[in-house]
Amino acid sequence: MSDLAFIGLGAMGAPMALNLARDGLPLRVHNRTPARAGPLIEAGAELAASPADAVRPGGVVFTMLADDAALDAVTSGEHGFIDRLGAGGLHVSLSTVAPETSRRLAAAHAAHGSLFVAAPVFGRPDAAAARKLWICMAGVEAAKQRAAPLLERLGQSLHDFGTDPGAVGVLKLAGNFMIMAAIEAMAEAQALAAKSGLDRKAVAEFFGSTVFGGPIYRNYGRVLAEGAYTPAGFSVDLGLKDMRLVRGAAEAVKVPMPIGDLLRARLVSAQAKGRSAMDWSVIALASTEDAGI
Amino acid sequence: MSDLAFIGLGAMGAPMALNLARDGLPLRVHNRTPARAGPLIEAGAELAASPADAVRPGGVVFTMLADDAALDAVTSGEHGFIDRLGAGGLHVSLSTVAPETSRRLAAAHAAHGSLFVAAPVFGRPDAAAARKLWICMAGVEAAKQRAAPLLERLGQSLHDFGTDPGAVGVLKLAGNFMIMAAIEAMAEAQALAAKSGLDRKAVAEFFGSTVFGGPIYRNYGRVLAEGAYTPAGFSVDLGLKDMRLVRGAAEAVKVPMPIGDLLRARLVSAQAKGRSAMDWSVIALASTEDAGI
Amino acid sequence: MSDLAFIGLGAMGAPMALNLARDGLPLRVHNRTPARAGPLIEAGAELAASPADAVRPGGVVFTMLADDAALDAVTSGEHGFIDRLGAGGLHVSLSTVAPETSRRLAAAHAAHGSLFVAAPVFGRPDAAAARKLWICMAGVEAAKQRAAPLLERLGQSLHDFGTDPGAVGVLKLAGNFMIMAAIEAMAEAQALAAKSGLDRKAVAEFFGSTVFGGPIYRNYGRVLAEGAYTPAGFSVDLGLKDMRLVRGAAEAVKVPMPIGDLLRARLVSAQAKGRSAMDWSVIALASTEDAGI
Amino acid sequence: MSDLAFIGLGAMGAPMALNLARDGLPLRVHNRTPARAGPLIEAGAELAASPADAVRPGGVVFTMLADDAALDAVTSGEHGFIDRLGAGGLHVSLSTVAPETSRRLAAAHAAHGSLFVAAPVFGRPDAAAARKLWICMAGVEAAKQRAAPLLERLGQSLHDFGTDPGAVGVLKLAGNFMIMAAIEAMAEAQALAAKSGLDRKAVAEFFGSTVFGGPIYRNYGRVLAEGAYTPAGFSVDLGLKDMRLVRGAAEAVKVPMPIGDLLRARLVSAQAKGRSAMDWSVIALASTEDAGI
Repeated sequence: MSDLAFIGLGAMGAPMALNLARDGLPLRVHNRTPARAGPLIEAGAELAASPADAVRPGGVVFTMLADDAALDAVTSGEHGFIDRLGAGGLHVSLSTVAPETSRRLAAAHAAHGSLFVAAPVFGRPDAAAARKLWICMAGVEAAKQRAAPLLERLGQSLHDFGTDPGAVGVLKLAGNFMIMAAIEAMAEAQALAAKSGLDRKAVAEFFGSTVFGGPIYRNYGRVLAEGAYTPAGFSVDLGLKDMRLVRGAAEAVKVPMPIGDLLRARLVSAQAKGRSAMDWSVIALASTEDAGI
Repeated sequence: MSDLAFIGLGAMGAPMALNLARDGLPLRVHNRTPARAGPLIEAGAELAASPADAVRPGGVVFTMLADDAALDAVTSGEHGFIDRLGAGGLHVSLSTVAPETSRRLAAAHAAHGSLFVAAPVFGRPDAAAARKLWICMAGVEAAKQRAAPLLERLGQSLHDFGTDPGAVGVLKLAGNFMIMAAIEAMAEAQALAAKSGLDRKAVAEFFGSTVFGGPIYRNYGRVLAEGAYTPAGFSVDLGLKDMRLVRGAAEAVKVPMPIGDLLRARLVSAQAKGRSAMDWSVIALASTEDAGI
Repeated sequence: MSDLAFIGLGAMGAPMALNLARDGLPLRVHNRTPARAGPLIEAGAELAASPADAVRPGGVVFTMLADDAALDAVTSGEHGFIDRLGAGGLHVSLSTVAPETSRRLAAAHAAHGSLFVAAPVFGRPDAAAARKLWICMAGVEAAKQRAAPLLERLGQSLHDFGTDPGAVGVLKLAGNFMIMAAIEAMAEAQALAAKSGLDRKAVAEFFGSTVFGGPIYRNYGRVLAEGAYTPAGFSVDLGLKDMRLVRGAAEAVKVPMPIGDLLRARLVSAQAKGRSAMDWSVIALASTEDAGI
Repeated sequence: MSDLAFIGLGAMGAPMALNLARDGLPLRVHNRTPARAGPLIEAGAELAASPADAVRPGGVVFTMLADDAALDAVTSGEHGFIDRLGAGGLHVSLSTVAPETSRRLAAAHAAHGSLFVAAPVFGRPDAAAARKLWICMAGVEAAKQRAAPLLERLGQSLHDFGTDPGAVGVLKLAGNFMIMAAIEAMAEAQALAAKSGLDRKAVAEFFGSTVFGGPIYRNYGRVLAEGAYTPAGFSVDLGLKDMRLVRGAAEAVKVPMPIGDLLRARLVSAQAKGRSAMDWSVIALASTEDAGI
């Protein structure tokens, strides 16, 4: 297992890579900003100067990047790893990207004799650190069989969604869409409740512990009730990136999504009002402001 | 405790009344269609010929009616109970009605020297039968103190939302709104997933057991994936009644609710297509049909 | 023709009644605020103390009131005219009201042996003064034949829409809906144009004199470009009244209208922001504000 | 004036080029499908084998292409004209394209010492044939001065919108957006009218000749009333292309446009239902179908 690489040490990637390192797996890591690799080096990982340097021929490489362009760059760009990974290698892509990006990468790997698994993850950084992520995967069988034991180290459950790495990317986008739809619904409901004389925090606490138990409604309900939009857990800019991926995926298969349109309009307006770096749940202010609160 | 009455033995009222009867509390019941009282009579309850006949002066009366008009009729109509209930009586209203209806009833009771508690409940008929309802309440302290031990017999938790019976009604409406918003979001997400090549049931099963654990997403996710819109758990007609109450409450306090508008449009269209008696989650067919599936 | 009455001397009713008086037709007028009758008395009309006093048995009465309740009151209220008008009388209703209100009035007149014509008008007060209104009418043939020569004095054209006074009311509501939809479309377009570096006034002037020639786009385009929302030509409150009538008419026949929903949300938000008395085109500020201008 | 070229002989370009040829201006034309040049050759124009062959150094070239990619290709592609046009040349771009495409082209021309004018036109093919187009233009003064006398031959009026060729492109997009918004508003209004018992054609005829006089409401009102969606005057596919350009322009300057979102959803759904080649006004069927007609 000396052939393991992890590229992309952001808020999600760093704790996931750290878990692999702590399991004693020999690991080379790469990040555009090398400073972020500190804790990993402490845990025994080796820092590589480029994506290509991080991988070994026939090895396994994980990627967790911010967007499609970054994923393309580390894979097939000037210092990308795809040539060096070569025949028998495996690329496990954890990022949230467009379905066609994953399909294109799978084809590129096939042309190189290497394997590709798309494995989007659900959960926040603290869940990544605690190995509590829910992980989905899709790809050819041989690829999934090799990826599975590694992915199982990173989350609480692993879900096989077949062979199309594009489709499993849609699943991830659909999940983020539903989370944001829940935020908007809570925002409208809280605006109504507040102007009707109810206490926002009591309302959020009630729903989050009863009808809508579970972290999404409980956590975001509290954020909205308290107006705690900074620091961002997930920023307006990232939210809009994802909601545009949702739109792209939906238009590709010709599916109108009216709540999706509303969410993007909210995010665009949040940017226009200078809230790009705040948490994406700041779209809730639209309901507040439109209600004259 | 021989002074207990329960009026309205529909899908929700019947199991709630039955739980009171099974606790050995002497109970008089009334329903517009007396035949529904059978199991209650077996359990020891007494059938009253009218709302007024059901109550005793200074006693306690529960009401669980289909709509505002029915609630007004049993309270203050020709054979209504408010006069007979009289000074020292208590009316516990469990129905989902407009905030102003509850406020008007509270005032009417105050004029008669009787007390009023609005106590909307969350949960389906099986939860009512199993005493698993979540129950909220609002009213003057004396009223809540008398109502609380009775309400605790009917649910798994009781939540005090202060003194305004109208406001607690808004809470109930907000909850139903959020449930329906979740249905619409799932409908859009499933349409996207299905046209992208994913299996609807696998998608519903995944989200319902992970990110969106809890009964709302799990149960409705399955209903949508299977297209199981009949028999209705909660019909399009009832759903539209509730969403109109949401609109009325929102306009009263001047809160725009764009998802609320979308949900009503979906329900109106469902009626126009002859789906009035199907489950309200049949609005999901709009996403399917608009996507040309 | 000494049997002519005109009830309701608001911004629209006053110039219309004045035109009848100036034609030398003996006219009795009534208004809740008698002071508004001044110019009419100068022109030879007689002021009546009540709706009933204004009409003569078997005569003709025009009504131009603010809303359904006012129309009901002058017709069938305590001092209403319907009894006195009696057999052979004719009521020409010019107001914008709900379809069912007109149908109910038609039935009430039929029960009294009198006739009813619904004749909604399109145009602003200056068009009323200049006899430039477009007038529609519906009712039984005998009623329309008697009303037509009088209505022709008040506008530039008269359009027969059959026998159902409710349906012609829907026509009026549909027209106001389309006007407001045009305002919202202009608002979004101008916000886009302004943030793209174009001059709002030049844009409004261009479209209003070319592709979208005609008063609606020209006048409202200018209002939006200049932000001239006071004084109101037609207030937010009146606009919302009409858009609620649209909604009521649409729900009665089960027609979803998504732009209609958007317009009502805009108007409700305008009220919430304290703009109730401004021109209904002030909804354009929502596009401006959401764009961070 | 022997230096005049016209590239793109589609439904709009052909009649415009023909008007230049009929004015006796020596003209070279190019079209991807040469067969469309027949009437132009008859009128004295010369057919060029490529965009580069069509232009003369320092001459004037008009382009009227289907989309941004085609415009880029004829300008800067393999056989593009920009090098040959060279210093002192003028490119007049009549197509509806993204603002950034025009800005990029203007910069490319500046680098070659040539001039660029963006001159989007409003009107259908019959208006182009009759020289009844409304034409807007933007660019540097020297470019506009040279383009103006030629553009005046092609339309009924010419409107100067300053120096930014991107901004005038937004004006064109805003106009198409407002046309489509009017179609949707008419669709909703006609669905309401039809289900209320009114005759669609009578309604369309009334509004198109009174309140909403002018070709947009009159012509599309009739199309909707008659359901005459084929042959397409402007197809769903082209409509969606334009509405996506609107979205791109709006997101670039951070302007939410809720009616714009609705229109795109309608068009995507029309594609999903197999209506891509029908007239874009076929989105009106959504209102009809959602109303269960």
